[in-house]
Amino acid sequence: MHAAQMVEDYPVVDLDSDALAAARLLAERRLPGLVVTDASGCPQSVLPASEVVQFLVPPYVQDDPSLAGVLNESMADRIADKLGGRRVRELLPKEPVELPRVAADDTVVEVAAVMARLRCPLVAVMEGRTLLGVVSASRLLELALH
Amino acid sequence: MHAAQMVEDYPVVDLDSDALAAARLLAERRLPGLVVTDASGCPQSVLPASEVVQFLVPPYVQDDPSLAGVLNESMADRIADKLGGRRVRELLPKEPVELPRVAADDTVVEVAAVMARLRCPLVAVMEGRTLLGVVSASRLLELALH
Repeated sequence: MHAAQMVEDYPVVDLDSDALAAARLLAERRLPGLVVTDASGCPQSVLPASEVVQFLVPPYVQDDPSLAGVLNESMADRIADKLGGRRVRELLPKEPVELPRVAADDTVVEVAAVMARLRCPLVAVMEGRTLLGVVSASRLLELALH
Repeated sequence: MHAAQMVEDYPVVDLDSDALAAARLLAERRLPGLVVTDASGCPQSVLPASEVVQFLVPPYVQDDPSLAGVLNESMADRIADKLGGRRVRELLPKEPVELPRVAADDTVVEVAAVMARLRCPLVAVMEGRTLLGVVSASRLLELALH
């Protein structure tokens, strides 16, 4: 079995797509992160859900966590306020999370070796510069345990 | 809303539970990791799926990745061989992944503040030394966007 046959359904967003829509996608699909591509569809990074969560935290709570308990603001208003009109590229961490790449004809063991070495939960499967899809660590385990 | 009302269904395994069963749980539920507790049920760590994947990679491939492509071994045999009879504690990374804790009566903003500060995708919700459940980053976004 090759990497191209292992790819799974996993949402991909563009660097310039809408930030609020990306947050909704994370929430609805209950995902730990989204794959982010450039305009040509080439994977650039991963947007972790934990990175988006910081937009729920007002700056004065980031400065003084003891204020979090007394806060009584609507989270829905806050996140719509903070993310509305923004792009996905503005949500990415300063040190972006790298998405390792494997080739379409790499074997299961090659994919597992990359994932194990880099301790990453996702790899991108590439055919040249085209993203065929991703393989997660749990998908690899599913295939191995089948 | 308090942390106790936000907890979600998330599988928890014991340090001394069966390693192969834990790998199956990761695969079947398609999870990026499992919460690991001690015998008293107190959360100790997280077992990332990417950590278990390394048991799919034979040692000679870990030493020389160029050998991965020529390998023709059954993954199912390998993982059953490697994990059979082992305990979850033997699969944990040498530098364990910490699972941050929040109190049952912490607010949504307090939980978000912990998650954002530590850039972690999961927190444990505790009532004293009892684990009530976990809250993931995507669950927080779901609540905020509701």
